[in-house]
Amino acid sequence: MDRVRSLAQRVSNWGRWGDEDERGTLNLVTPEVLKRAAAAVRQGRAFSLGLALGADGPQTGSVVGRFNPQHYMTAIGAPFGAPGGFHYSDDVICMPLQCGTQWDSLAHVHYDGLLYNGVPAERALSASGTARNAIDKLGSPGIASRGVLLDLARARGVPRLAPGSVVRPADLDAALERQRVELLPGDVLLFRTGHLQVFLEGGDRETYLWQGPGLGIDCIPWLRERDVAAVCADNTAIEVMPCEDPELFYPVHLLGIRDMGLPFGEMFDLEALAADCERDGQWDFFFAAPPLKVTAGVGSPVNPLAIK
Amino acid sequence: MDRVRSLAQRVSNWGRWGDEDERGTLNLVTPEVLKRAAAAVRQGRAFSLGLALGADGPQTGSVVGRFNPQHYMTAIGAPFGAPGGFHYSDDVICMPLQCGTQWDSLAHVHYDGLLYNGVPAERALSASGTARNAIDKLGSPGIASRGVLLDLARARGVPRLAPGSVVRPADLDAALERQRVELLPGDVLLFRTGHLQVFLEGGDRETYLWQGPGLGIDCIPWLRERDVAAVCADNTAIEVMPCEDPELFYPVHLLGIRDMGLPFGEMFDLEALAADCERDGQWDFFFAAPPLKVTAGVGSPVNPLAIK
Amino acid sequence: MDRVRSLAQRVSNWGRWGDEDERGTLNLVTPEVLKRAAAAVRQGRAFSLGLALGADGPQTGSVVGRFNPQHYMTAIGAPFGAPGGFHYSDDVICMPLQCGTQWDSLAHVHYDGLLYNGVPAERALSASGTARNAIDKLGSPGIASRGVLLDLARARGVPRLAPGSVVRPADLDAALERQRVELLPGDVLLFRTGHLQVFLEGGDRETYLWQGPGLGIDCIPWLRERDVAAVCADNTAIEVMPCEDPELFYPVHLLGIRDMGLPFGEMFDLEALAADCERDGQWDFFFAAPPLKVTAGVGSPVNPLAIK
Amino acid sequence: MDRVRSLAQRVSNWGRWGDEDERGTLNLVTPEVLKRAAAAVRQGRAFSLGLALGADGPQTGSVVGRFNPQHYMTAIGAPFGAPGGFHYSDDVICMPLQCGTQWDSLAHVHYDGLLYNGVPAERALSASGTARNAIDKLGSPGIASRGVLLDLARARGVPRLAPGSVVRPADLDAALERQRVELLPGDVLLFRTGHLQVFLEGGDRETYLWQGPGLGIDCIPWLRERDVAAVCADNTAIEVMPCEDPELFYPVHLLGIRDMGLPFGEMFDLEALAADCERDGQWDFFFAAPPLKVTAGVGSPVNPLAIK
Repeated sequence: MDRVRSLAQRVSNWGRWGDEDERGTLNLVTPEVLKRAAAAVRQGRAFSLGLALGADGPQTGSVVGRFNPQHYMTAIGAPFGAPGGFHYSDDVICMPLQCGTQWDSLAHVHYDGLLYNGVPAERALSASGTARNAIDKLGSPGIASRGVLLDLARARGVPRLAPGSVVRPADLDAALERQRVELLPGDVLLFRTGHLQVFLEGGDRETYLWQGPGLGIDCIPWLRERDVAAVCADNTAIEVMPCEDPELFYPVHLLGIRDMGLPFGEMFDLEALAADCERDGQWDFFFAAPPLKVTAGVGSPVNPLAIK
Repeated sequence: MDRVRSLAQRVSNWGRWGDEDERGTLNLVTPEVLKRAAAAVRQGRAFSLGLALGADGPQTGSVVGRFNPQHYMTAIGAPFGAPGGFHYSDDVICMPLQCGTQWDSLAHVHYDGLLYNGVPAERALSASGTARNAIDKLGSPGIASRGVLLDLARARGVPRLAPGSVVRPADLDAALERQRVELLPGDVLLFRTGHLQVFLEGGDRETYLWQGPGLGIDCIPWLRERDVAAVCADNTAIEVMPCEDPELFYPVHLLGIRDMGLPFGEMFDLEALAADCERDGQWDFFFAAPPLKVTAGVGSPVNPLAIK
Repeated sequence: MDRVRSLAQRVSNWGRWGDEDERGTLNLVTPEVLKRAAAAVRQGRAFSLGLALGADGPQTGSVVGRFNPQHYMTAIGAPFGAPGGFHYSDDVICMPLQCGTQWDSLAHVHYDGLLYNGVPAERALSASGTARNAIDKLGSPGIASRGVLLDLARARGVPRLAPGSVVRPADLDAALERQRVELLPGDVLLFRTGHLQVFLEGGDRETYLWQGPGLGIDCIPWLRERDVAAVCADNTAIEVMPCEDPELFYPVHLLGIRDMGLPFGEMFDLEALAADCERDGQWDFFFAAPPLKVTAGVGSPVNPLAIK
Repeated sequence: MDRVRSLAQRVSNWGRWGDEDERGTLNLVTPEVLKRAAAAVRQGRAFSLGLALGADGPQTGSVVGRFNPQHYMTAIGAPFGAPGGFHYSDDVICMPLQCGTQWDSLAHVHYDGLLYNGVPAERALSASGTARNAIDKLGSPGIASRGVLLDLARARGVPRLAPGSVVRPADLDAALERQRVELLPGDVLLFRTGHLQVFLEGGDRETYLWQGPGLGIDCIPWLRERDVAAVCADNTAIEVMPCEDPELFYPVHLLGIRDMGLPFGEMFDLEALAADCERDGQWDFFFAAPPLKVTAGVGSPVNPLAIK
């Protein structure tokens, strides 16, 4: 944890947008950034980056408290009023807010008793959820910006990075270089490892959940220097799993979410988008992925859109 | 129902996009429309149109099967790994897919045994949900387009339309005229009645749920002629409640969703957006409101974004 | 709270059955008591004391976290295997463990940081439930004993005690006297106020939930002296509501559950049983009301049986 | 299915207790039977036959719609009123009604479009549950009777019957003979296969769920002739799995539940009770296992009690 604490001093955004701020790096999405985002719509093609939200989702039940969505019908073509007329169907869902394609709120993780922006965890967290840094703050309004996709698998010339591979700053630079795309402050960075294929094609949920290739801890300063507004990926944790140092759990989460106030978007399906970008060479797009405004929630499912 | 059946022949979109189509009027959102939508981002200001998704939502429990979201914590700052390090919080939500700001899928309502595009209800609907016209079809990709807001309350010079007032085509025309904005094929139409104030300011959920001012049945041809891609409002049913003819339940739902394949977005919070548009005179914007891709679902909560 | 702390010294059962005990006064149900219970079956008539567990239950949603059960079908006559053969239906329930006829576990309430038998609340309670004094402990095995019904309404010659009436030890004695029944150590005491009629007949859930006639604080020593194994009633809290001293919340809960280790059974429907007992003069019976063995649970729904 | 239909004629109880009956063989529990049940309490020892109801339950998620209970805290030692005083904890459960130790209602299975007592399935079953033969009918009042345990594993001299072994009438007779116990009309029959050890000791849920030793179809007339009131076992389906005839799914369910109106109690933990009975030679007891009165429900979890 000493390495985390030391890096935290370097990358922290606490106080940068005021002591009451609960939106973190989303503050970087200025009107200018939104206009730049809109300007990336050059062809009028849209992509959904969300996995199907159903019983066939990526969860196995092996993560405490996480399971695939349970979907119940409360009306199935039920008649209402006179016969022959109006019939309706209604439904209910029970699901972990982080069971599939989703955002982490800035209250999702913490250490040393403090959440993002110095909020005492003990005061914020309870059976009612989080009183500070909840997901609804990220959704008011948000999350939309210019998105930039980095295809780390194609950059290495492989269909997918091997389970457990660590992504280094040099990998990110190489992908930017190869794709000839610029990453600007306020952009949302999406990176593709190809690891989602392990689940989507191979049906191997355990490997998908627990052995994702992903960012190593030294990508944290890289992200901070570029002032990205959010980071998204097709793995389950943005960062590499298992963690680089077996004694140090989820350091990228801790530094990104708690110290930088950087929203993490996980389990994004980037396959079709990446193939399209590879084809036409346009790697930036309008990105809109508004989290549900769950009061006091620590995460949210989302169906992200990329529009080129 | 004879009036419904007769109007249906006039406005039906069945077969228009193929016999297998499950996206309805979202097909009208062409690449050109998306580019036009992006061009509406002139100032870089974003608005969230979603209500808070929590125990304080608009539901009273008086609608069968609908209640406000139930939010449970499955981890509250739980330590993981070595002491002093990583702590995390996780949560679960149980909610009707149509309890707050939400989309109706094209399977939500039907009559005469057929869903949108002639799908037999009996074959599509079961305890598992809907096998056709499910909400995930509207989310792949979607829903994004140019949005146009009509402020019907300001057009009439009132803070909000009275409960139960019927909106006529002339009201829509008058608002377009007043606002000097053009509604084009493929646009999403959002109209504000101000009725949401009854709940948000007055706390009167029953009146909000059951007595919304809204579209009368003769707005259906108006919508069809203009080829809007979706229609959204701040009331609970798009159409007026109670229904114009007490014997004919939800005719606008039946004709819009089942015959036209027109997605309905309900309980949108348009207050801040409308005030801003009134101020600067820009009534169109980039609209992004992707429904969750709930497998076999008939609705979805959403946090819609409008970006000017 | 000083009165509570002082009374606690007098009635406490901490340590009485060992420092590890989690079953409290259920320890009083010895083999002799169970044989005495069986001997009360003289006529072979059984009564269910449970309210219907469904959407029409007593909850209004005005108690934080409590609502009526939500019941979902996951299969509705679904065929399995060859046509014409096996069809099945399955269902799911989501419910507060204390939404209707139910048991409080010995972890349900506490004060001064300690649960029953001196267990530190902070160590026992978490998002996972309670690590000590959970409801499954009361169910292994249990709860069964000789039951004795006291009809406090009939003793006062009224159909039901008025909302908010305080029951005193003299009322309990008078009912015992009138009914000529003996209350013995290890028995389960059930008392009827008639207050349930306010909900069942009058549909007034708010008054039912919040203004129940019930035990005053001076009944606590009375219960302790008689060594009852559990106490059940047709009101929602055993004790009177609003509480006698508006500054002192739920003192009977605190002293009964936390200090005595006395399980509380609430919202029991005693109407038919009481009428039968009045008719034949037999006020004791075999009582079996086993709580569900919910791991780490703090309460349980139950369908109690009385067999005369 | 012809064999089923033919046997049905022989064992059917339709109309036996009136055309409106929804309690089936529970009608056999007369006052005399209840008195006989009470007389079986000779020693005053109680046993809980319920499995723990929690995340460690027997479900794997491989059965559609069935999962282990999800338990959520809605208050965790929350203070109410003045500081230092009352604190409380509350919780919620979401669970399939048949995920662990449980009762099947008489609406759980059917064939040829009819439920028990000739009720048309189409009229009874909907998204709201079952309008007839629901589990609350079995709980009003009930289920209590004299229980008789048959230890089929000990009768064969094995710790547990092999997965998939078929139990024949001769096995039941041999166990009765060995145990020198009489089975009388109105008794509840419980039989132990020992198969539960596969889950409890071996942790092998798949084998436990899908390969239980159990009754063959020719036990159905045997049960009918003896007029048992209910049948319970430590396997998951009473009957053998896989089914004897791979083309004929769950014939014992169909004949028992739908034709005889015989409640099935599944996944009972009979280990400790059986060991005790073997030790002292008393194989009968008072049996109390009241299902929750879930309105329109098709099953119920239960914590059954046996008192000797």
